Amino acid sequence: MLGISLERLSKQSIKRQIYTQLREQIMNGQLKEKDELPSTRELAKALKVSRNTISEAYAMLIDEGFVVSRQGASTRVAEGVSMNKNEQVISAIKSSPQYTITIDFRTGRPDLRQFPQYLWRQFSNKVSMEMPMELYGYTGPQGLYELRTEIAEWLFRNRGLKVNAEDIFITSGATQALYILAELLCKSGSKVLIEDPCHSGMHRIFANRGCLIEPIPADDHGMMTQYLHIKDACAVYVTPSHQFPLGGILPASRRAELIRFAKENGIYIIEDDYDSEFRYSGDPVSPLYAMDQQNVVYVGTFSKSLFPALRIGYVILPQQLHERWCDVRTYMDVQNPVLQQAILAEFMRTRKLDRHIKKMRRIYGQRRLVLLESLRESFGDKCLPCGDAAGLHIAVDFPGMRFDKDFQEICLRNGIHITPVEKHCIVKDRHVSKLLFGYGHLEPDEIRMNVHALYDLMKKISLV
Amino acid sequence: MLGISLERLSKQSIKRQIYTQLREQIMNGQLKEKDELPSTRELAKALKVSRNTISEAYAMLIDEGFVVSRQGASTRVAEGVSMNKNEQVISAIKSSPQYTITIDFRTGRPDLRQFPQYLWRQFSNKVSMEMPMELYGYTGPQGLYELRTEIAEWLFRNRGLKVNAEDIFITSGATQALYILAELLCKSGSKVLIEDPCHSGMHRIFANRGCLIEPIPADDHGMMTQYLHIKDACAVYVTPSHQFPLGGILPASRRAELIRFAKENGIYIIEDDYDSEFRYSGDPVSPLYAMDQQNVVYVGTFSKSLFPALRIGYVILPQQLHERWCDVRTYMDVQNPVLQQAILAEFMRTRKLDRHIKKMRRIYGQRRLVLLESLRESFGDKCLPCGDAAGLHIAVDFPGMRFDKDFQEICLRNGIHITPVEKHCIVKDRHVSKLLFGYGHLEPDEIRMNVHALYDLMKKISLV
Repeated sequence: MLGISLERLSKQSIKRQIYTQLREQIMNGQLKEKDELPSTRELAKALKVSRNTISEAYAMLIDEGFVVSRQGASTRVAEGVSMNKNEQVISAIKSSPQYTITIDFRTGRPDLRQFPQYLWRQFSNKVSMEMPMELYGYTGPQGLYELRTEIAEWLFRNRGLKVNAEDIFITSGATQALYILAELLCKSGSKVLIEDPCHSGMHRIFANRGCLIEPIPADDHGMMTQYLHIKDACAVYVTPSHQFPLGGILPASRRAELIRFAKENGIYIIEDDYDSEFRYSGDPVSPLYAMDQQNVVYVGTFSKSLFPALRIGYVILPQQLHERWCDVRTYMDVQNPVLQQAILAEFMRTRKLDRHIKKMRRIYGQRRLVLLESLRESFGDKCLPCGDAAGLHIAVDFPGMRFDKDFQEICLRNGIHITPVEKHCIVKDRHVSKLLFGYGHLEPDEIRMNVHALYDLMKKISLV
Repeated sequence: MLGISLERLSKQSIKRQIYTQLREQIMNGQLKEKDELPSTRELAKALKVSRNTISEAYAMLIDEGFVVSRQGASTRVAEGVSMNKNEQVISAIKSSPQYTITIDFRTGRPDLRQFPQYLWRQFSNKVSMEMPMELYGYTGPQGLYELRTEIAEWLFRNRGLKVNAEDIFITSGATQALYILAELLCKSGSKVLIEDPCHSGMHRIFANRGCLIEPIPADDHGMMTQYLHIKDACAVYVTPSHQFPLGGILPASRRAELIRFAKENGIYIIEDDYDSEFRYSGDPVSPLYAMDQQNVVYVGTFSKSLFPALRIGYVILPQQLHERWCDVRTYMDVQNPVLQQAILAEFMRTRKLDRHIKKMRRIYGQRRLVLLESLRESFGDKCLPCGDAAGLHIAVDFPGMRFDKDFQEICLRNGIHITPVEKHCIVKDRHVSKLLFGYGHLEPDEIRMNVHALYDLMKKISLV
């Protein structure tokens, strides 16, 4: 009856199957306005189900107004409920070709195999056992106080920074920190000064916001502050502890110049400290924030020191931005999830983070040496590593060579994922002879093998 | 020597203390450009620390360019590193007065005391034990595939929706879903049709984006679709399953009219289904999305059915929006944290979510009845509850009375947090006699007590 067919083994209840099929018929016009539905008794008999089931299906249709039923009268299709089913044409998504990558030199990837999974799980267990119920509710846009306190302590131990927990704001990673800062500091159409080259993703955040990007060139020592001259900018973005991607440390004189410039023009410096925990000769570099707390916003992340899927980063924010930050975050995604914040706080309190970073610094430092050695073995003096001994990648100059999108494409087709510095350049053609080697996630043997494979390919295409 | 004072018991190393104090002196000009630092031997002797410690502190200053050191020559302060220390004046944050709330009728708060904490912890344990290492890395902006599959299955079981996991995108709650949709669908300055009243937070998301808000009035049956006439809008925002805050179910004829309107004008309908799991008479209402998959974007959340700090919601997205969605999310906050997604997937796969919702539906349903009964006891026929038997709050009309900001303020000063519908109205003065009672988080006894307390206050200020 009514063309209803029931699947007894479906996960969907019989009631819902009847409801769905009747609704479909009403919407596409098979059942027309004012058409009479069979009585519950009739339909129950026809479909061999209980009358109650039919009544419930009808009740759903009545509640949602697809049919109307009046005391004593039969149930009829309501008016104005059929729809024109001429669908719009969907534009298909263009999918890019997928290659199988066996040689992976991508940047910004920590070695997840070394992550103390078991320990983290124990902490997760302990923390979730002790977590008070109110933390399952809305706990505010600034982030868990315990975590902010631990970050403040950790910054003091490791960087000599004196920071109040009140000035720390937890984010879902550094990307969100920059996204919110772009929202806070930059109007659409205003100018942002960005070191060039600069991570293409970070650059995109400001561009997406509608900012005009004003590139300030960077050399082996980071942003060349003598080129800071645009007076009507709204912010400066910089990676002073380990310039991405070239790797330089911004010298104190440039730091002072940068801060003077920001103060004179009343604008903020966004200091992105994405991986400087990992410095292999000497201590981590002191942040720009240590020199000035009025105009510098410091951005930190645990994606590199722990794991990316944790999605926890933070900013240290001058007081005058606190209120607007909370406002933006509240209407963006409310707050970070709470459990992982609590686990991380405990992980830091018990100094497990310090220990993990110390261990990884040793491991990454060795890998860096293996990479440098392998490059020397394969390429000899054809290659010159740039920057400071820090982070999870090295920029390497191959004077006279040219690495562009075509080169990257050839590599991909041969299973090699490697990024030319050119990809991260705002003004093109200045760093075209440089390649980026991400090595943090690779074992020494993988590094050696990968460098050889790259050398072989470059030989095959007559680059070396 | 040099005015350096060391704290032996500090958490900061001696080396870092020396470095920090010297840097401070250089920056504020106490140590001037080209000034000579004492030799490591001299300073070590003066401070009673090892010479090695001094060398390391000097090395940090050299690395960061605060001082320069040449073979055979003494260590000197670098040029251009002092800064002008005239700080800008900070505008103080205006803080709003804090009241102690004892009577809390706020909306949108599930009862966290009923949350199966122990079970969730067991799942957390199990899932983190089995989680493959690659999930700790970057896993893409769409969200965990297993979770999307479970959501699809769950929507089929509970709402009769046939959805592909490919069309589901995980978000950090419904707020983020709306935030990204505003970014995708609405240019600054374009018009958005929003039912009125509408949750002030959701309304804010579109207003913050720079949209022109065009209110479409809502009555006891939701959005009054006969007022849909603005042709150049970019989107319609609607809560058809349980209108917030009035509580009506959008009838099928209005649903059809809304969809026809969207199709004719080639715009999207944003369907916010924030709490319709909790319906107390009959099954959950079928989403608008069931009637049309081309122009409807469905927004769901687990903040109400599980807990807010979970920060997981989702959208069902027409295919033509997939690519841009991923793009926006990637440069906003990359992705959701992964562990909670995996726990939730397992919680759904084992039908624990179904069971929890079933239990809470019973509990909330009882509380709703207690609230209605208490209102009747105290206010008699002076109050009329609005809307359908669903959700975690009721809008109640007190004909002839007037609830505005002043009333809310008086309540707050008396420890009562209750929201007039007026707060959520775009066009003011249409619903000024209505109050919102959030009851989900209150025990029956608390509900009774709270209603009496409210009645007493209203009597005191001569409202009843």
